[in-house]
Amino acid sequence: MSKFKSIAIMSRAGVQGAEETLTALHAHFINRGVTHFFAESSSDMAPENADVIPDKSLGKHADLLIVVGGDGSLINAAHIAIDQSLPVLGVNRGRLGFLTDIHPQELDSIDAIIAGDYTSEERLLLQAEIPGVDEPIIALNDLVLMPDGLSQMVIFSVTVNDQLLYAQRADGLIIATPTGSTAYALSGGGPILQPQTNAITLVPMFPHTLSSRPIVISADSKVVIHVSPSNPKPLCLSNDGRARYPISGDQKILIKRYPAKIRLIHPADYNYYQMLQTKLNWEKHAERTHL
Amino acid sequence: MSKFKSIAIMSRAGVQGAEETLTALHAHFINRGVTHFFAESSSDMAPENADVIPDKSLGKHADLLIVVGGDGSLINAAHIAIDQSLPVLGVNRGRLGFLTDIHPQELDSIDAIIAGDYTSEERLLLQAEIPGVDEPIIALNDLVLMPDGLSQMVIFSVTVNDQLLYAQRADGLIIATPTGSTAYALSGGGPILQPQTNAITLVPMFPHTLSSRPIVISADSKVVIHVSPSNPKPLCLSNDGRARYPISGDQKILIKRYPAKIRLIHPADYNYYQMLQTKLNWEKHAERTHL
Amino acid sequence: MSKFKSIAIMSRAGVQGAEETLTALHAHFINRGVTHFFAESSSDMAPENADVIPDKSLGKHADLLIVVGGDGSLINAAHIAIDQSLPVLGVNRGRLGFLTDIHPQELDSIDAIIAGDYTSEERLLLQAEIPGVDEPIIALNDLVLMPDGLSQMVIFSVTVNDQLLYAQRADGLIIATPTGSTAYALSGGGPILQPQTNAITLVPMFPHTLSSRPIVISADSKVVIHVSPSNPKPLCLSNDGRARYPISGDQKILIKRYPAKIRLIHPADYNYYQMLQTKLNWEKHAERTHL
Amino acid sequence: MSKFKSIAIMSRAGVQGAEETLTALHAHFINRGVTHFFAESSSDMAPENADVIPDKSLGKHADLLIVVGGDGSLINAAHIAIDQSLPVLGVNRGRLGFLTDIHPQELDSIDAIIAGDYTSEERLLLQAEIPGVDEPIIALNDLVLMPDGLSQMVIFSVTVNDQLLYAQRADGLIIATPTGSTAYALSGGGPILQPQTNAITLVPMFPHTLSSRPIVISADSKVVIHVSPSNPKPLCLSNDGRARYPISGDQKILIKRYPAKIRLIHPADYNYYQMLQTKLNWEKHAERTHL
Repeated sequence: MSKFKSIAIMSRAGVQGAEETLTALHAHFINRGVTHFFAESSSDMAPENADVIPDKSLGKHADLLIVVGGDGSLINAAHIAIDQSLPVLGVNRGRLGFLTDIHPQELDSIDAIIAGDYTSEERLLLQAEIPGVDEPIIALNDLVLMPDGLSQMVIFSVTVNDQLLYAQRADGLIIATPTGSTAYALSGGGPILQPQTNAITLVPMFPHTLSSRPIVISADSKVVIHVSPSNPKPLCLSNDGRARYPISGDQKILIKRYPAKIRLIHPADYNYYQMLQTKLNWEKHAERTHL
Repeated sequence: MSKFKSIAIMSRAGVQGAEETLTALHAHFINRGVTHFFAESSSDMAPENADVIPDKSLGKHADLLIVVGGDGSLINAAHIAIDQSLPVLGVNRGRLGFLTDIHPQELDSIDAIIAGDYTSEERLLLQAEIPGVDEPIIALNDLVLMPDGLSQMVIFSVTVNDQLLYAQRADGLIIATPTGSTAYALSGGGPILQPQTNAITLVPMFPHTLSSRPIVISADSKVVIHVSPSNPKPLCLSNDGRARYPISGDQKILIKRYPAKIRLIHPADYNYYQMLQTKLNWEKHAERTHL
Repeated sequence: MSKFKSIAIMSRAGVQGAEETLTALHAHFINRGVTHFFAESSSDMAPENADVIPDKSLGKHADLLIVVGGDGSLINAAHIAIDQSLPVLGVNRGRLGFLTDIHPQELDSIDAIIAGDYTSEERLLLQAEIPGVDEPIIALNDLVLMPDGLSQMVIFSVTVNDQLLYAQRADGLIIATPTGSTAYALSGGGPILQPQTNAITLVPMFPHTLSSRPIVISADSKVVIHVSPSNPKPLCLSNDGRARYPISGDQKILIKRYPAKIRLIHPADYNYYQMLQTKLNWEKHAERTHL
Repeated sequence: MSKFKSIAIMSRAGVQGAEETLTALHAHFINRGVTHFFAESSSDMAPENADVIPDKSLGKHADLLIVVGGDGSLINAAHIAIDQSLPVLGVNRGRLGFLTDIHPQELDSIDAIIAGDYTSEERLLLQAEIPGVDEPIIALNDLVLMPDGLSQMVIFSVTVNDQLLYAQRADGLIIATPTGSTAYALSGGGPILQPQTNAITLVPMFPHTLSSRPIVISADSKVVIHVSPSNPKPLCLSNDGRARYPISGDQKILIKRYPAKIRLIHPADYNYYQMLQTKLNWEKHAERTHL
């Protein structure tokens, strides 16, 4: 793999111990002579003498974005990185994430990665288009249709490639990428999608029809959610739990693959299944299963 | 689409009303001047004066195989058709199947299909290799590892592309194609895979670890089930519920895509989701959901 | 069974066709010489010449409350009836409910019930006590802890009879009676509890621990939900989806059986399981199951 | 609590380390002057000089039965103890069970229990009656209707108190006590029933109707499984996974509470929920949940 020449670093407000790790990375990179910058959004946490670059220009100066924090921080960083074609490396804060697999004290690991010894993988993204919002609403994990506030029931129908899939009354609908299949969709009973599958999953939330099941469709599908005009209360669409776009009755939400992917960088010995085993408490030895 | 020039017809012992439909097809085809034969395995049900061809030679004489019966009959026919590159069309016996979508009295539909007005789709297949069995064990629906007889618990581990996925104690393991995702795997809590997804799903049966979940992986994966030497009783592998191949402790089962696909023929207005709605009792109108 | 001597009638704003049914009941009861009144809250829908009584005094003048509408209307009426020891009879508006089993045109059925030919059953109720709310918060279906508005994750622990059951991060928690087990809790994966079981069920909503399962405990248990001080956003407790009581971090919610029960009246040939079969699309004939 | 005066001890062939623990218990009891015997079925594992009593007479000579092994061994012992009104105490072999909560090296715990410092609880039992079997078929965990050997699908209907609950095509049916709700039924998606609930649960196995759900009914219900005459292959009924009683088409299985209960003895600080947390990997601290 090719080496990384210039590193951007960011974190997020509220990440415990972030400042400490940013400082350690700064010192380490100075020590090793590695060119690096801090994202402006993280400048509060950055060491005083560090170079700072606006988030939107990171891609011009850096060829790797290191994020310090949990999966939420990585998702946040990914949204900044996507259109700058910046690969992202997650350094967790002491607890393994689904996406952040480097322990903050493994500075050697980071050295190896920068030197070109790493695993790189691309994760597919979704985009939604809704009336009145000009830019695509991008998601690395999921797009979620849900009530905007207090009401519970959402009435909608879904077409896939212009064919009716189903009409539902439910608490909402999760449309998840493989990356998002181990996030909110998993709590809702969705299947795990291996990152390599070119597929997405639709998981109705608390559906009123007992025969509803999660469905997995090609990521190249065109999905349209038609929100029923008879919805009693305002709804919204959320992308990766970041923003909530108001949706009103009778609106249509068009969902399809976003043309770009996000590139995630892992240590060379990265193993997706091992990560699942750790995060989901799966056994490697059948003799120790719980029941 | 290209026309079909010569039709092979088959059914299966025990299909109620099969003889009647075979007779009607024969009369109809004679009437229309359509070249047709009966598969030798169905010769008992065929009209007396009909031409009969050995099952293994159907592909040499026909370019379409019409199967009369339910999904089980179609699966059975598919196993005959796969290596003869014969597309298959299912005529149900009065009750819609997941795979057999033509009503036996819709002879007009069949005329249209033969005349080239149809939908054609390819369904992926799986194959298993086990020690001592020379030929690949092919599945259109699923491969199921389970106890061979009375015992219940099966101990095994699974690797995907040589990486450990998990070790399990369970009643067994279902590995299903998209076609099989609406069959046995669905009863076991697996997701529905749209036929177009290039994916398969692994569904542990009654797993002893509560955090087990169905996983969807690329159909291009190499899956190995390593049956633990500590299994107390004999196991077996079943393909589409057809045969049971004995599996003993410490054996490895290699599972991957079968190089060929099976081609299914449907009426021109075929709609997969509409079929799901009918078969799974899904509502097309949210107002009528059950709860 | 003893006859009913005086009937109170109510419905709810928004119930389609309610006025028509109230008028029909009024005419029918006059015709038969049955003493009857309308609840003041439904006076808008009542015939002009009908007698009207304040909702809180219904029990003094009537020994049966007839509710016209769906399950929501019956739940609403039950909350009025509970402390007046009034039994409740549900007349649906053309579509069977879990709780409202008389079709509006079956006036003969109603005559028979009034004449003493009916089935009577008592359903248990729950109550919650929260700081700052003096009266018990009563539920016939369920008590639901959830975010009050937009946030998703709720952090809480639960004790049963002063022993820790579990700590959870989830979208919320449903505590349902047997009556509520076929309502919201069922959409969330909870089991069905036969009305006669002296039990309640706790169903975590979208739990972050995959090994979470619904648990059924004695209805005589003392349940305390301890809402974590670390909840990022305001929460609330809802009873039967009626009101939302704000809950703040570090508060404790005490839940136990309400001392009284509600009495539901059904036709003499009422059959709980038959109702389940109809509502949940269960088959009475195994040959017709869907897969 | 009253003291125990005479202790019966048993284990089961195949329990690893059983002999060692039996020997340790023997030495310890001699040391403390505690009257004790070994069950004849375990005489192979018992110390040479120990007293041995036939399994069926244990209740005449002992007032407590100590079982060394896992949950399976305790279930086995319970079947011997039930009709002798003998309470049972489980000593696991180093790994906590759902029912066996004393570690083999906690001899002090056992002393305390014998001295009268313990928790005692009664667990309800089920019994099945089938044609041709004179004695009731007793279950502490569950009764399971399933294929007897290779076939998969079972066709049956179930009545509760003579009312049809449902007709099913499925892999089988589990009827579990609260004790059994954390055993096989839990793998099949059933709810956990707190031991104090006077309830049982019916869990269809791989049901062909997607709207099937586990149902919880009063333990005082009369359940009848009517096995359809159209079952293609022989079936059986299993109790606690112990024996398999052949069931043929058109037979009826009557299931109800067994009049007696089994008494389980635990250390004084026994906590059912703590055991669940350990066995099911539940978190006591929400911050550490897995997702």
